[in-house]
Amino acid sequence: MLIEDKFMTLATDNAPGQEMRSKADNITHQMKGGTLIGTPVDFSHGDVDAFEPTPGSFDAFADGVHAGGKQAYTEYRGSASIRSVVAGRVGAFTGAPVDANEELIITPGTQGALFLAVAATVTNGDKVAIVQPDYFANRKLVQFFGGEMVPVILGYEGKDHDAGINLNELEQAFEAGAKVFVFSNPNNPTGVVYSKTEIEAIAKLAKAYGATVIVDQLYSRLRYEGTSYTHLRALSERPNNLITIMGPSKSESLSGYRLGAAFGSAHLIERMEKLQAIVSLRASGYNQAVLNTWFNEPSGWMEERIRLHQAIRDDLVSTFRGAGLPVRVPQAGSYLFPKLPALEVGPHDFVKLLRHQTGVIATPGSEFGPHSLDSVRLNFSQDHTAAVAAVKRLVELVERYKK
Amino acid sequence: MLIEDKFMTLATDNAPGQEMRSKADNITHQMKGGTLIGTPVDFSHGDVDAFEPTPGSFDAFADGVHAGGKQAYTEYRGSASIRSVVAGRVGAFTGAPVDANEELIITPGTQGALFLAVAATVTNGDKVAIVQPDYFANRKLVQFFGGEMVPVILGYEGKDHDAGINLNELEQAFEAGAKVFVFSNPNNPTGVVYSKTEIEAIAKLAKAYGATVIVDQLYSRLRYEGTSYTHLRALSERPNNLITIMGPSKSESLSGYRLGAAFGSAHLIERMEKLQAIVSLRASGYNQAVLNTWFNEPSGWMEERIRLHQAIRDDLVSTFRGAGLPVRVPQAGSYLFPKLPALEVGPHDFVKLLRHQTGVIATPGSEFGPHSLDSVRLNFSQDHTAAVAAVKRLVELVERYKK
Repeated sequence: MLIEDKFMTLATDNAPGQEMRSKADNITHQMKGGTLIGTPVDFSHGDVDAFEPTPGSFDAFADGVHAGGKQAYTEYRGSASIRSVVAGRVGAFTGAPVDANEELIITPGTQGALFLAVAATVTNGDKVAIVQPDYFANRKLVQFFGGEMVPVILGYEGKDHDAGINLNELEQAFEAGAKVFVFSNPNNPTGVVYSKTEIEAIAKLAKAYGATVIVDQLYSRLRYEGTSYTHLRALSERPNNLITIMGPSKSESLSGYRLGAAFGSAHLIERMEKLQAIVSLRASGYNQAVLNTWFNEPSGWMEERIRLHQAIRDDLVSTFRGAGLPVRVPQAGSYLFPKLPALEVGPHDFVKLLRHQTGVIATPGSEFGPHSLDSVRLNFSQDHTAAVAAVKRLVELVERYKK
Repeated sequence: MLIEDKFMTLATDNAPGQEMRSKADNITHQMKGGTLIGTPVDFSHGDVDAFEPTPGSFDAFADGVHAGGKQAYTEYRGSASIRSVVAGRVGAFTGAPVDANEELIITPGTQGALFLAVAATVTNGDKVAIVQPDYFANRKLVQFFGGEMVPVILGYEGKDHDAGINLNELEQAFEAGAKVFVFSNPNNPTGVVYSKTEIEAIAKLAKAYGATVIVDQLYSRLRYEGTSYTHLRALSERPNNLITIMGPSKSESLSGYRLGAAFGSAHLIERMEKLQAIVSLRASGYNQAVLNTWFNEPSGWMEERIRLHQAIRDDLVSTFRGAGLPVRVPQAGSYLFPKLPALEVGPHDFVKLLRHQTGVIATPGSEFGPHSLDSVRLNFSQDHTAAVAAVKRLVELVERYKK
């Protein structure tokens, strides 16, 4: 593959957070009506001013700086003492022990963990099963390493218990030779959680076919009332090669520190460390110290954060449904993935018009797979009042452009 | 290539900073004599407790945290306002302007910049010219992306003006189809600086053959008395595709913040940003704010830092030469690369014995190329007294194991 082609697949033109680099195409000729005034809301990511970083996180960072050289230069996989703390806590959270010395690596964000995990398992010509819709980087990573994507549909609409993965397609993917399965749980962009039955079936299939599973559990702490969650790694029947990814960037609002962790099969973690040595050496040494606050927040803090997010979720779901726009109620995390009706403008132009006419930034569904062009993703970890008003403007704009 | 083989080339067993993970092989049967007592010195990297981070760096970080969401979530290539500051300063330093919007990316350390630059220019089967000896990651990166390394010898010994690059070999590499040339200037591990004649010749050859040049100038600020430095990017006759890499991890002791910058050809910077989006998203947002201190240190601060390093350099060079061990005087940076005589033990075992018997950590020459197995690299950015005592113990151990 020519290097030009390799990078063609990595387009970031519609990627969340890159809106400010988007060329100011002239869309005024498509514009219907004037602007709708209101507080701008950037739903492409959570607002860490509305939901602030974990209490004590800055102090933990300052402790890291004061610790000096030994904190600045850690092993490539991260400081041994911090790995020990984190391994204990993620082991307890996920229900199965993690060996701090061999089974865990600290990375620059969960993105860093995902990159290393895919790089450690996928090379030219490898088939990789990928859920549609799912986090956009999964697909791009497979393409970058020369892998071949085998799609597995997530039929999330109209369900309220199962996530809706098509297990027949997953088995067919394994039969066709897929060596790796990458998925997020809770699913990004829909916020649905895989049921115990689904996770057990995934684990059983992967084990039977000898496939590696990479499960991105970034949002698995922020779970709403009535949601039960199954950690694949805690099942007795699970694949031999399994990497679980988590990090404090979302529910804990620590994204500015770029921290993530991957834990699982020791030989894969070892590969990931070898690669991290030439990718970025290590997660910033001082930043690593912030992980001391992770899973150690003040009593009741996470519960309150969940309660506040659930209240926003419920108001936004009501607003969308009240306007006749279908949306599944997310069971965890802070993404909403409503479906828009047929519009007079293309989906990317609508997102641009939305930004210019209402000050609302949403991520087009095309980023998450080819079957969700008519949806937009909203990260509703925002100021409650501003978010409700912004979604009302969004709904009003949909009405304007509806066919 | 099988993925197992791909990762075989990425061994980190002897990589600097990974000594604590090195399996405790039993080397006592090879041990001659007892231990030599003294303050332990880890020459694998600089000691940021002996040479502290730039004054004001922590305050700049704190300002970043207080700025909140807009600093936590920057564009993937880094905050626009910080890029603007950095572009102005590196443009002035290197003698040619840098467009902040199109020609610069902020990365997690210079390692992050090097990774992205090689990934943006090298793919399966591409030939890449690599200097021997040079920074170990250059070779590993080329191998990881399936490139083919074409070695170019740096005959640094016995010279005191030219770095010693074999320009005939470089031209042969280009003739043989090398599309990319990666090198560090000042050279890591030897500390030699390429002369104006050499840099002009490299630029001319690369331009003539249409090759891309990636030049790692990490240490180009810490230059000793009498050293002149030529920035390749400021030459009027230079290659069309050129990336220059710098960062504040070394001379400025800001390694704990993991910051780097790459600047040059806009289309390559664009590829690097697309890739950064799936590698780590961005350099930690808050950390980026620390770049506001870069090239803006208190008056006289860098001059004093250079003076102190030059004094250590001179004492260590005298100690090595006094014991009959050849070493070229580094013109910049803080690496020494002395040559050891024939020993009764292998070079990796000697490094282990050195660590166990004297508390001195050095990096084996094998990390930098196949022709320097008889050298060791020392980063002498250390406490002056401790460093001199440590090198005396090293020299004493060499005497013990000399054939």
